[in-house]
Amino acid sequence: MDEVKIIEIKKSVFADNEKDADSLRTELKEKKVFLLNLMSSPGSGKTTTLIQILNRIKNKVRVAVMEADIDGDVDAVKIKEATGVPSIQLHTGGMCHLDAEMTRQGLDNLNLEETDLVILENVGNLVCPAEFDTGATCNAMILSVPEGDDKPLKYPLMFTVCDLVIINKMDVVPYFDFDIERCKKYIHLRNPNATIIPVSAKTGDGIDKLAEWLLKQLP
Amino acid sequence: MDEVKIIEIKKSVFADNEKDADSLRTELKEKKVFLLNLMSSPGSGKTTTLIQILNRIKNKVRVAVMEADIDGDVDAVKIKEATGVPSIQLHTGGMCHLDAEMTRQGLDNLNLEETDLVILENVGNLVCPAEFDTGATCNAMILSVPEGDDKPLKYPLMFTVCDLVIINKMDVVPYFDFDIERCKKYIHLRNPNATIIPVSAKTGDGIDKLAEWLLKQLP
Repeated sequence: MDEVKIIEIKKSVFADNEKDADSLRTELKEKKVFLLNLMSSPGSGKTTTLIQILNRIKNKVRVAVMEADIDGDVDAVKIKEATGVPSIQLHTGGMCHLDAEMTRQGLDNLNLEETDLVILENVGNLVCPAEFDTGATCNAMILSVPEGDDKPLKYPLMFTVCDLVIINKMDVVPYFDFDIERCKKYIHLRNPNATIIPVSAKTGDGIDKLAEWLLKQLP
Repeated sequence: MDEVKIIEIKKSVFADNEKDADSLRTELKEKKVFLLNLMSSPGSGKTTTLIQILNRIKNKVRVAVMEADIDGDVDAVKIKEATGVPSIQLHTGGMCHLDAEMTRQGLDNLNLEETDLVILENVGNLVCPAEFDTGATCNAMILSVPEGDDKPLKYPLMFTVCDLVIINKMDVVPYFDFDIERCKKYIHLRNPNATIIPVSAKTGDGIDKLAEWLLKQLP
């Protein structure tokens, strides 16, 4: 099994996260690094979706991955084994989200000079990660079909802060009471400008479109 | 549509939540009220499972429900309409969990003299609610099949603090890579004494057993 670097993230000392996030965003822009912050509930298929995207873009851009989890390194190892993409594991030590300073602790362990795109897989949680700006260039989230089409009504902030909503597990729509049009309507209530891309990370449906969208965002 | 009481929960002023939780637990014991704290990820089927349980126990015990959500009153209305059980909605104002003092603010709006069992549906989140003792007599959580059997590895504390783990959406097992035996093994790694009950809130399978388990816990 591949070994991955595990970074134990320390609690931030910055009082003003918004200011810190803005300055991180500016630094990254100067370094021509695009940081995608990927959020979702536990078990929505973040890692599987990420593997699918990485295998489509890794020969086109220099990409690295930071996997944030409370514990374990399952995801970073999985990413590295399935894609060969440089991947590090961030341990939050029980913390439910990452802020800008915590994100920076991860970035310090990557070679940003040789990286165009960093994808941060945030802690699986629809509440707290939405409240803390990580300094990312772009926020994205995955909503999976089994979670239900009403989630934008119940977790409003998450859908408000995301530029991209990926609807995953479209292959199981027949087995759930999930109305994609109703879901799109609810998402646009929260953020009229959100891009919505339905996919199945299992079958690969929709992933080409997703990879294409992502590449278009890069400078 | 039924109207339900909506309580805007204020942030706690107590510094020592554990002490406060213990004293709430003692008070509830004296009043012969059993408080069940039900937690899960967003979209695991907490409300649907709850409706199924309530319809089986409501003629046997005096039960009331507190629905905690960041926003909205969809769940409390749904519970009241589907079961007739007294149900109030707690708004957390963006907060990702409830602690003992916040739980008490909800309880103050119920008639505890005429209640044997209060079920608190906590905010959908596998991280923060596990960290804050609500003062409940018993902690339970729902893990749904689409979330994956590895969740006890990635969200250890949630599984450690729960006396009961309900595995929901068993009807869709054929469409997911979910190994129930592996899942049980992972849960018992976190808490060897956890009771595990697989159910399908959709078909009703396993709910009789769940209702029976719950009734047995009451004094």
